[in-house]
Amino acid sequence: MAAHIPARALQLRSLVTPDQTVQVFLDEVDVPEPGPTEVLVRVEAAPINPSDLGLLLAGSDVTSATVSGPSDRPVVTAPLPDAAMRALGARIGTAMPVGNEGAGTVVAAGSAPSAQALLGKTVAAAGGAMYAQYRCVDVMFCLELPAGTIAVDGASAFVNPMTALGMVETMRLENHAGLVHTAAASNLGQMLNRLCLAEQIPLVNIVRRPEQADLLRSAGAAYVCDSTAPTFMADLTAVLKQTSATLAFDAIGGGRLASQILTCMEAAASADAGFSRYGSAVHKQVYLYGSLDRGPTELTRNFGMAWGIGGWLLTPFLQRIGLEGVARLRSRVAAELSTTFASSYTDQVSLAGALALDAIATYARQATGQKYLIRPDL
Amino acid sequence: MAAHIPARALQLRSLVTPDQTVQVFLDEVDVPEPGPTEVLVRVEAAPINPSDLGLLLAGSDVTSATVSGPSDRPVVTAPLPDAAMRALGARIGTAMPVGNEGAGTVVAAGSAPSAQALLGKTVAAAGGAMYAQYRCVDVMFCLELPAGTIAVDGASAFVNPMTALGMVETMRLENHAGLVHTAAASNLGQMLNRLCLAEQIPLVNIVRRPEQADLLRSAGAAYVCDSTAPTFMADLTAVLKQTSATLAFDAIGGGRLASQILTCMEAAASADAGFSRYGSAVHKQVYLYGSLDRGPTELTRNFGMAWGIGGWLLTPFLQRIGLEGVARLRSRVAAELSTTFASSYTDQVSLAGALALDAIATYARQATGQKYLIRPDL
Repeated sequence: MAAHIPARALQLRSLVTPDQTVQVFLDEVDVPEPGPTEVLVRVEAAPINPSDLGLLLAGSDVTSATVSGPSDRPVVTAPLPDAAMRALGARIGTAMPVGNEGAGTVVAAGSAPSAQALLGKTVAAAGGAMYAQYRCVDVMFCLELPAGTIAVDGASAFVNPMTALGMVETMRLENHAGLVHTAAASNLGQMLNRLCLAEQIPLVNIVRRPEQADLLRSAGAAYVCDSTAPTFMADLTAVLKQTSATLAFDAIGGGRLASQILTCMEAAASADAGFSRYGSAVHKQVYLYGSLDRGPTELTRNFGMAWGIGGWLLTPFLQRIGLEGVARLRSRVAAELSTTFASSYTDQVSLAGALALDAIATYARQATGQKYLIRPDL
Repeated sequence: MAAHIPARALQLRSLVTPDQTVQVFLDEVDVPEPGPTEVLVRVEAAPINPSDLGLLLAGSDVTSATVSGPSDRPVVTAPLPDAAMRALGARIGTAMPVGNEGAGTVVAAGSAPSAQALLGKTVAAAGGAMYAQYRCVDVMFCLELPAGTIAVDGASAFVNPMTALGMVETMRLENHAGLVHTAAASNLGQMLNRLCLAEQIPLVNIVRRPEQADLLRSAGAAYVCDSTAPTFMADLTAVLKQTSATLAFDAIGGGRLASQILTCMEAAASADAGFSRYGSAVHKQVYLYGSLDRGPTELTRNFGMAWGIGGWLLTPFLQRIGLEGVARLRSRVAAELSTTFASSYTDQVSLAGALALDAIATYARQATGQKYLIRPDL
C-alpha cells in the first residue's frame, strides 16, 4: 500500500501578512509517517463550514480579493480591514492549515492495534488541516464510517451533528423544556429539526424568509417564525407559550434578535403570573454560537432579571461532557449518518477550485442553502 | 406593653393609576396581631435603597411630580412614560406597600418561643412594607441586633451586606479568582471594598469620577479605574492582568461598560497566549444587578467565545445557597455590623418627609454618596 503514497502533497494554507492582507494558497508539504496511534488519511471530502471561515478568510474583504499564480496553484490575496487586523496579531507570518473536518481512506497506520484496525477503512476525522490531500490524525479523532458509506457522505459527520446533539444535551443539562434556533433553515438547522422531531423536543425555528419557513414546515417542523414578519414578536410569544422553550441557540449574534427572544420568553413566562417587579423567576438563556451579523448585540433588558446570554462553542461543550459522553454521541452519529445527520452540498470543488473568486464570494456570504464541499482528490 | 400599640398606623404606599400616573401616599392601616411565629416591629429606621425605587416610583418622571394634601399626609403624583407603563399592567389599581428592609423594636410577639425571645429586642427585618410605623414579620426574616445597637445602625443590615457577601460567595461558587465592581463608590461598593480587603480578595473598583477614586483609595482599595479617563481600557486591562479577576458585578446595566469589561478581561487573559481563533478558554462573566443606565446594553463581542452575561438578584442567590448558607451570612453581618457592614446616611426623613419633592428628586437620581434613611418614628 505504501507505494501509492507520495512523499509530498498539497495543503491549503491561510497567511496573514504584515501589510494587512490575507493570502490563501496551496502549499506542497511533506506527507508525514503516522505515529503508533495515528493513521494517514487520504482526504476525499471536506466541507466548508461557517466555523472554518474565520481561519480561512480572517475577516478579510473578499469583494476586493485578487487571484494570481497558475490555475492549479492559485494565490488569493484579500485586504484586511483595521478592525479585523487588530485581532490577528498572533497570526502574522504563520501560514495556517485550515479545515475542521473531512473524510477519506486510511492509507497507512501506526503500530497500535486501534490504528491498524482502520487500515483501508473510510473514516471521518476532525482536528483541523483537513483541506489537504493527506492528513495524519490520531485515531481518537477518527470515526469509522459504516461499511459502504463513501467519504462524501461522511465528510460532515462531526461539526454539524455534534453541534446539533450538543444543543439538545445542553438543553437537558441546564433543565430547559424546549429549544429556539435562529438561522433555522441552515444545514445545521435542518439537522436539528430532524433530531428534535425524533426526540419529541419542542423546537421553535426562527427564519428570515417565507420560503425558509416553507422548507422547514415541509420537513415536519411544528413551530416556525419569520423574524421579518410584522407580527414576529406576537408569533414568537405565542409559540413560546405553547412550547415553554427557554433556551435559544443564536447563529446571528449581532443586532436585537437575542434580546427579542428573551423579551418574548419573558412575556410567555409571565403571561399568567401576577405583577412581579423583577419579572418572572423562570431562567431564560440565549447562547450565541455564530456571528452572521458582526455588529454589536443589543439587549433592551425588558425581560426581568432571570436571564443569561453567552458564547457557546462545540469544543468546550465536548470537554464538559467528557470522553464517555463524546463516544455516546459519536456512535449515534454513525448510526444515523444517512438519516438524521445527513448533509447535502450545492457545490463540489477541488482544492484549487475552492480558491476561485466566485466560489469564495459565494461561501463567504454564508447564504442559507449554499454549502461547498472540497474534494482534494479531484 | 400592648397598651402602647395603636389600633391603626401609617404605611407608605405606591399606586399605579389607569390614567398613567403613579401616586405615592401615606395610608392609615390596621396594626396586625402577630401570628404564632411572628413579631410586631415598631419600625424606627428604613433605608431607601436603589432596589426600592422601582416599586416606589415605578419608573415615573419625577421631575414632573406634583404634591397635594396636608403636609403630614402628602400625596405625590408623577406621570408614567409609555415605556414604563407597559411593564406595570399587573400593578394598576393595587396600592403597594414599599421598603425592603429596616429595623426597630419588637413590641409584640406570637406564642412561639422563637418569637417570644425577641420581645423588647431591637431587630433588623427584611421582607418588604418596611416604610411603615408598624410591620408584622415572621421571625425567619428577623435578625436580632447585637445588644446596644440602635435601629438606625441596623436598618441596612440586610440588602447591602447580603449583596456584598453574595457577590463574594458567587465568585467562589463559580470559580473566579477576583472581582470587578462598577459604581464602586456607592454605599454597597464601599462595603464590598472593606469585605474584599478583609478576605484578601482582589477587587477592581470602577468609578466615574476622580474624587470617587480618591475615596476608595483612602479606604485602602488597591485597584481603582475611572471609566471616564481616556486611558480607561488600558488601565483596566493592566489591573485585570494583575488580579486575574474574571467576574464582574455591574450596577450600570446600559451602554457599553459591561462589554468593555469583557474586552479587557479577554485582553488580560490572552496577553501571554498564542493566537486562538475563538479567543481564550478563560470564562469571563458579568452579572448586571442594577440599571442606573436604563438604555440598552451593547455587546461588541470582541472577547472570544468564553463569556456570559446575565441578571443577578439577591433573592434567587439566597435560594441557591439555602437556609444554612443564609444563616451563616447573617451571623457574619451581625458580628461585623459596625465595621465591615456599616452604612451611613446623608439624610434622615420622616415618612411624610420621604414624600417631599426635593427629597424624591435627590434619591431618585441615585447619586453616589447620597443615601436617605426613613425614620417612621419621627
